[in-house]
Amino acid sequence: MKRMKATIAYDGTNFAGYQSQPNMRTVQSEIDKALVKLHKDDSVYSVASGRTDSGVHALGQVIHFDTPLDLADRWKMALNVLLPKDVRVVHVEEVADDFHARYGATGKTYVYRWSYSEVQSPFERNFAVHLGRWNPNVERMQEGAQHLIGTHDFTSFCSAKTATTNKVRTIRKLSLERQGDHLVLEVEGDGFLYNMVRTIAGVLLAVGIGWDEPEDVRKIRDAKDRKMAGKTAPAHGLYLMEVTY
Amino acid sequence: MKRMKATIAYDGTNFAGYQSQPNMRTVQSEIDKALVKLHKDDSVYSVASGRTDSGVHALGQVIHFDTPLDLADRWKMALNVLLPKDVRVVHVEEVADDFHARYGATGKTYVYRWSYSEVQSPFERNFAVHLGRWNPNVERMQEGAQHLIGTHDFTSFCSAKTATTNKVRTIRKLSLERQGDHLVLEVEGDGFLYNMVRTIAGVLLAVGIGWDEPEDVRKIRDAKDRKMAGKTAPAHGLYLMEVTY
Repeated sequence: MKRMKATIAYDGTNFAGYQSQPNMRTVQSEIDKALVKLHKDDSVYSVASGRTDSGVHALGQVIHFDTPLDLADRWKMALNVLLPKDVRVVHVEEVADDFHARYGATGKTYVYRWSYSEVQSPFERNFAVHLGRWNPNVERMQEGAQHLIGTHDFTSFCSAKTATTNKVRTIRKLSLERQGDHLVLEVEGDGFLYNMVRTIAGVLLAVGIGWDEPEDVRKIRDAKDRKMAGKTAPAHGLYLMEVTY
Repeated sequence: MKRMKATIAYDGTNFAGYQSQPNMRTVQSEIDKALVKLHKDDSVYSVASGRTDSGVHALGQVIHFDTPLDLADRWKMALNVLLPKDVRVVHVEEVADDFHARYGATGKTYVYRWSYSEVQSPFERNFAVHLGRWNPNVERMQEGAQHLIGTHDFTSFCSAKTATTNKVRTIRKLSLERQGDHLVLEVEGDGFLYNMVRTIAGVLLAVGIGWDEPEDVRKIRDAKDRKMAGKTAPAHGLYLMEVTY
């Protein structure tokens, strides 16, 4: 058996999230169906770096799976032929037997995108959150973001449903930048709690449009109470960009 | 009554084309539904510059409609609130009573997009035609395109089902250019026959990949026979960019 690592991109729009669920179209179930077909109906299951919610996109999700097959450089093509066009395998390589897509991950990078255009382009409706009449002050958002960089307890920034007990995470980088018609938040950390990036996006937007002060981000963080953080930003602005090992 | 001109953008992916058809989701039926709602169930119908096929996109489709309402600068917002997010009104203005979106059009510009990337981005699957293993020679395509610029009988370049008798049209500009990861064909003319841009795209791609010679484009044109032109290029690479009056 060989252990393979694959990098996956998907448009999350028409999926009920990443993780397999009975009677739902999920990214994982499409990948596992393709793997099973390629292995002539032998059970082959993939393990991902983590799940993503319905509507969330990925350019660099990482999975691993074990296989008796040796397809050399034809893995990518073989899987893409079997996958629907909204999931693509962008890279495949053989890795050591102890490589683990989830437990071996040392960092993840996410991007959150808003669009400024007065009327949202119909081509963007699933790929960026329309700011509409809001014109957030990016400097204020950057100022607020400083309170999140570093090692903190992120209880206020994750879903109340989060099962994980340890809510301490390290954010290594958190930037906000206007890129053409978009406002782009990029965040890199050792790991993220459930809904953490979308909650951060919601809190920083509230600062940008003047509902909260940059200093409030520190107060929300220190409260360790999800109710302090306001609304989670919509799923369709979020992209899993990279997982590092 | 006032006559209004509106510029419309749409993602053609989830539409059975532009024109209303019983029991089908079309762009026109969504626009007319929004107009009827806005007019409190009075019949108001729009007239477009022309139809587009299922899967074809638009950034600058033009329609007109007559209305007793005076919404001043709120037309765009009022319609966009009622429309689904894959159709957007990008501009509305009052025009003279004799303005006609279809009969008054003096020119149209279309774009056709192919993507070069080795693995097609899942975000592009409905918005550009993947070239895959083809790497067309753009100079050859440009050379072939010269035989289409000017006033010609385009019988070979329209669907055999075209009802129009006069198949003479003038192409004012036809360019091919690599733009980053895309090959972009832009064509501007006084009017286009049914499937004409997609047939031109198919013929020029065949020249680009060496199946035909640039000189063959002239032969296909002069044959005035649709069977000479090979396969029509897929709908989802095509965009109606602008209609001039």
